[in-house]
Amino acid sequence: MVLLRHGESVWNLENRFTGWTDVDLSVNGIEEARLAGKILKNEGYQFDKVYTSVLKRAIRTLWIVEEVMDLMWLPTEKRWELNERHYGSLQGLNKAEMAKQYGPELVHQWRRGYAIEPPPLDDADPRHPRFDRRYAHLASEKIPASESLEKTLQRVIPCWEKDILPDIAAGKELIIVAHGNSLRALYKHLEGLSDQEVMELNIPTGIPLVFELDEAFRPTAHYYLADSEKGQVAVDGIAH
Amino acid sequence: MVLLRHGESVWNLENRFTGWTDVDLSVNGIEEARLAGKILKNEGYQFDKVYTSVLKRAIRTLWIVEEVMDLMWLPTEKRWELNERHYGSLQGLNKAEMAKQYGPELVHQWRRGYAIEPPPLDDADPRHPRFDRRYAHLASEKIPASESLEKTLQRVIPCWEKDILPDIAAGKELIIVAHGNSLRALYKHLEGLSDQEVMELNIPTGIPLVFELDEAFRPTAHYYLADSEKGQVAVDGIAH
Repeated sequence: MVLLRHGESVWNLENRFTGWTDVDLSVNGIEEARLAGKILKNEGYQFDKVYTSVLKRAIRTLWIVEEVMDLMWLPTEKRWELNERHYGSLQGLNKAEMAKQYGPELVHQWRRGYAIEPPPLDDADPRHPRFDRRYAHLASEKIPASESLEKTLQRVIPCWEKDILPDIAAGKELIIVAHGNSLRALYKHLEGLSDQEVMELNIPTGIPLVFELDEAFRPTAHYYLADSEKGQVAVDGIAH
Repeated sequence: MVLLRHGESVWNLENRFTGWTDVDLSVNGIEEARLAGKILKNEGYQFDKVYTSVLKRAIRTLWIVEEVMDLMWLPTEKRWELNERHYGSLQGLNKAEMAKQYGPELVHQWRRGYAIEPPPLDDADPRHPRFDRRYAHLASEKIPASESLEKTLQRVIPCWEKDILPDIAAGKELIIVAHGNSLRALYKHLEGLSDQEVMELNIPTGIPLVFELDEAFRPTAHYYLADSEKGQVAVDGIAH
């Protein structure tokens, strides 16, 4: 199974909190996605099915990878449960604006606390996901107005257990193209990280992360596919 | 429900029989897809779900439409049953080569006869779909080496009845992005055309075809969305 965090988005670039805001990849993000596809192709990876989120920066990353690998036909599940963490009313603000508006200490807690939720979007806020057709099929109590990493995990893991695991059990080779925090949640679950340990975990954009699983679907190994110099630099950069 | 035939492919352009060969859109085909997306967007269409084939000229058409309409999140079913008719060993030949190789009369029958299949691909032919991973999950007797329009219909209609109709019954607004012959088969079924009548039917590339259905899912109206001059010209061209 391969996990892939989408390439840089235009708001990553502007240092703004994105969350469920549906921004597209930056030019650099498109290049990262191409490189990810090339690495997977050169390493001989094949897939039977794809999981991704309903946000276009992940979907476009997937499309580019599929195009480079000549795998546009892959069955694709677009799941809201794999979305980025919802950053509530922080969405759209950059770090400097946040510190000014809420104070640096509070901002640090929202960014780093495992169970702490940023202030929610108001119910009437037009950015609230309840106004978005892609979430219209969800029960209203499932639609978040803000999420901690813990709450993100609480929607990612049921999707993993009910949908993704059965596909793996059926012998399918999967690629999951998602977001920093939905992938951190999955990584935490797979590797049994503590709430404290996951705070130190960062997954780089655009570098395929391979998980090898045993027959009980527990990881026996995981590693980044970064055979190019550029990729290795990215992984090293994140590690520090 | 909207039907959309993919834009011009590089083999349409070269006047070669494509069938299940996985060729991409031409530059003109990309432009046709963009125009289709613009028309649907300008007319205010919204969709809940997409059906397409496992061939990239349909999938790329869909991607372009989704991008133009800002609907990249749409749940997507890629179904082999919506593929183009399999043209057997004619795939790759152009009309002049075909006439030379098989004689013009036989070629006319293969192209126009409702129940006549072109000569099949040999079982050992590397182009045979049984060597293609995207069909690996199918029982071998389901994988065609050549198809008549009749045989094409015999796989399109079960997909319509078992999968697409239940979605419509659930209130979903659908777009189906597919191929000349899979869409002709569906059209024949919906409008009750005779085997003779369907031979006169041609569906233009890149022009959205709207079907309005009653409560029993029978069509009450169908029409092309071609509000631009260019689109109207294309429809007129096909009608003659």
